[in-house]
Amino acid sequence: MKIKLFTILLLGFFAFNYSQTDEAVLKTVYKTSLTNGKSYEWLDYLSNTIGGRLSGSTNAELAVQYTKKELEKLGLDKVWLQPVMVPKWVRGEKEMAYFESSGSINKVNICALGGSVATPEKGVKAQVIEVATYKDLEKLGKEKVQGKIVFINKALQPELINTFEAYGGCSSERYRGAAEAAKFGAVGTVVRSLSSRQDDYPHTGSMSYGDLPVAQRIPSAAISTNDAVKLSEALKKDKNLEFFFEMSCQKFDDVQSYNVIGEITGSEFPNEYIIVGGHLDSWDLGDGAHDDGAGVVQSMDVLRLLKESGIKPKRSIRVVLFMNEENGLRGGRKYAEVANEKDEKHIFALESDSGGFTPRGFSFDCSELMLSKIQAWKPLFKPYLIHYFEKGYSGADIGPLKNNDIVLAGLRPDSQRYFDHHHAANDTFEHVNKRELELGAATMTALVFLVDKYGVETITNEQEIKD
Amino acid sequence: MKIKLFTILLLGFFAFNYSQTDEAVLKTVYKTSLTNGKSYEWLDYLSNTIGGRLSGSTNAELAVQYTKKELEKLGLDKVWLQPVMVPKWVRGEKEMAYFESSGSINKVNICALGGSVATPEKGVKAQVIEVATYKDLEKLGKEKVQGKIVFINKALQPELINTFEAYGGCSSERYRGAAEAAKFGAVGTVVRSLSSRQDDYPHTGSMSYGDLPVAQRIPSAAISTNDAVKLSEALKKDKNLEFFFEMSCQKFDDVQSYNVIGEITGSEFPNEYIIVGGHLDSWDLGDGAHDDGAGVVQSMDVLRLLKESGIKPKRSIRVVLFMNEENGLRGGRKYAEVANEKDEKHIFALESDSGGFTPRGFSFDCSELMLSKIQAWKPLFKPYLIHYFEKGYSGADIGPLKNNDIVLAGLRPDSQRYFDHHHAANDTFEHVNKRELELGAATMTALVFLVDKYGVETITNEQEIKD
Repeated sequence: MKIKLFTILLLGFFAFNYSQTDEAVLKTVYKTSLTNGKSYEWLDYLSNTIGGRLSGSTNAELAVQYTKKELEKLGLDKVWLQPVMVPKWVRGEKEMAYFESSGSINKVNICALGGSVATPEKGVKAQVIEVATYKDLEKLGKEKVQGKIVFINKALQPELINTFEAYGGCSSERYRGAAEAAKFGAVGTVVRSLSSRQDDYPHTGSMSYGDLPVAQRIPSAAISTNDAVKLSEALKKDKNLEFFFEMSCQKFDDVQSYNVIGEITGSEFPNEYIIVGGHLDSWDLGDGAHDDGAGVVQSMDVLRLLKESGIKPKRSIRVVLFMNEENGLRGGRKYAEVANEKDEKHIFALESDSGGFTPRGFSFDCSELMLSKIQAWKPLFKPYLIHYFEKGYSGADIGPLKNNDIVLAGLRPDSQRYFDHHHAANDTFEHVNKRELELGAATMTALVFLVDKYGVETITNEQEIKD
Repeated sequence: MKIKLFTILLLGFFAFNYSQTDEAVLKTVYKTSLTNGKSYEWLDYLSNTIGGRLSGSTNAELAVQYTKKELEKLGLDKVWLQPVMVPKWVRGEKEMAYFESSGSINKVNICALGGSVATPEKGVKAQVIEVATYKDLEKLGKEKVQGKIVFINKALQPELINTFEAYGGCSSERYRGAAEAAKFGAVGTVVRSLSSRQDDYPHTGSMSYGDLPVAQRIPSAAISTNDAVKLSEALKKDKNLEFFFEMSCQKFDDVQSYNVIGEITGSEFPNEYIIVGGHLDSWDLGDGAHDDGAGVVQSMDVLRLLKESGIKPKRSIRVVLFMNEENGLRGGRKYAEVANEKDEKHIFALESDSGGFTPRGFSFDCSELMLSKIQAWKPLFKPYLIHYFEKGYSGADIGPLKNNDIVLAGLRPDSQRYFDHHHAANDTFEHVNKRELELGAATMTALVFLVDKYGVETITNEQEIKD
């Protein structure tokens, strides 16, 4: 009870931990973003002129050069490239697949999962065993799986309000499915796309063979949700139907790439860092407008909006455009590694990597006391319908910065449409709404402004418990 | 202060005015809507099989028959048609327009505003006078306006977070522009589309000549936002450019139509009515999926979801699909007229007419005390990210029911994309997301369930002040 009372008193204190000036600053920030934002224009270029930006590709390199050049135009104190070696995997020819039952051929839409090996040159054809999850393979045993294609048909749970939760409940099927199926002698895996919609788009994403010897690796594809339903129904009628697929993907040696970083150096505490970021790489099927072009351009605009709104930060504010979130996280790891080497004190990191949809708030990975301090700013955000300030996941790229003294935060946009587009050919610019994108940039800028102005107490959970 | 304290005490009381059972009921309602909703399927039919449903059209009649038939399948206690005479205006041939400057022709995208007269058969061609609002005409005077086409170029204010507010700031330009311009001798008006986007779609909507004699009425069109910018820029270079437009719209005599009504009769208070509704008519350019197909199918699904969730209402719950919201409001007026004639006690009316986007909450047109009672239910909605329970506008169709004893409410979905589609050819089914639509239906059902279970105190503002 003592702790609770203390917390309540603190909350009472924090409740006045902002001023009328802050209301005016937020108004300026939102107005500037909505009337004079740059995020949408940058996203148009990244999406439509450059396109998909898979790590190690020429497009990824073009995106590095473009964003560096655009940041240089903003009059920041520093802009630089941080070298990082990244994996290079390429899809090759467009994949082809069908199932054959009683002599009739049914074409289906598939794509290779990122990191998959190719099929043999003339494809793989085999009978299919359908499972709800790779965990069912154990029960089936080698006898029933050997020589077959394992079809993992697990749908996202529609009743979960937060679609990221539904995605989280299925993502290990995609990531581990092939490695598990190979152990039982399967010749390939076909995984139902992790999409919230019934449609014809297959959704790619990372997968891993773990420590499986190279010789035992089997090709793994995603199949569209519509075709997953079709295949499952066909299997009910004909257990012996055969599935064929052909993929020519390839893995190459790691190549040189970069994180792109820009900085406004703090006027009072230049050695305290606040970072905002998204990831510059994307999958290759669409143009990566939502994942994570949106996060990239919003993060870039945070620094520009601070300047345009006449805010001179006390701390150093960095935008970090991370390379290789999708299939390696090399950029996120490299940034943290260098920050640690240089003993840079990072007090706050904010990632936008959940699409350019209407922002609803943030989730925070930090101590309860830090969170309560931030929650005291909630009323400032009410006019902008930003209501969500909860404990939770922040972002993959900033994860490696985690320690007791930092607040990690993730922008939380409306999640309903995200997995309609995620990692699929329809993750494209025309599905991003300009106002939604700009509201996200403004919301990020507003939080960065407050964190810079008031700081975030470095009270760890341990201290909290001692109190 | 006394009143305030009283209110706070009441709020304290209301804060416990729901039970754990209610949490479970809401969970069932949301799950049912997201796993077994019908709204999307109905909307598909209304949008893609029927299409745009302008009052008095065959499509509007088909929509009446279809929704009646679908409501009859739900096993409600009553389903009936309520006759109402509606205006009939038709667009005719696709409109054509261009402006001509130094001999070069620039085609532009226009559409007739609903209710406009046609141009002469061979169109109208005249010089253009641009104004920011029709209110500027007074300053210009007859001399500068006579014989010209008035181009009203007022853009929605992008800095307003709620796009309905931005729309509200411009809608009288569309509604009154032609009547005002005609007084100064203009030969036509061209009004910038009330859209949040820069694109090529013209957006129609209602306009009125007020009491202007028939002979003085001038044709009025909307021009796309892109073309409004082009025209304005061209005018800066050439004040004498000429604008041509051709429209063949026509007004006919009123025709017979209907509101479609379904009812679950209350088990305890059958003579107390709660209604949910949207409007069945739409403009003709798109298929009216957001405006207001979404509201129609969500309202229908409220009754179905109550049944599917095992809820047996104490009060009578009606779904009312209003006819002719867009250009007459005859359905809304007729429903209230009949309700008054029959002395039916309506305690609550909820309209969904802001698009099928992710629901954020509701706005309420009622007394402060009624509102505080409803706000006490807010925590029940938190798991569904429904956070907005504020005083405000409800809906056009339910407006005529207003009195001191009723709570009028409007579903408030995210507003950012609404005016990209509103009244334009891109208000189509593919721009409605299934989950967003279903979340709206569930949110409406949850509120109806609570209002039915707990009632809404009929304390008027007058009584409030006396206390």
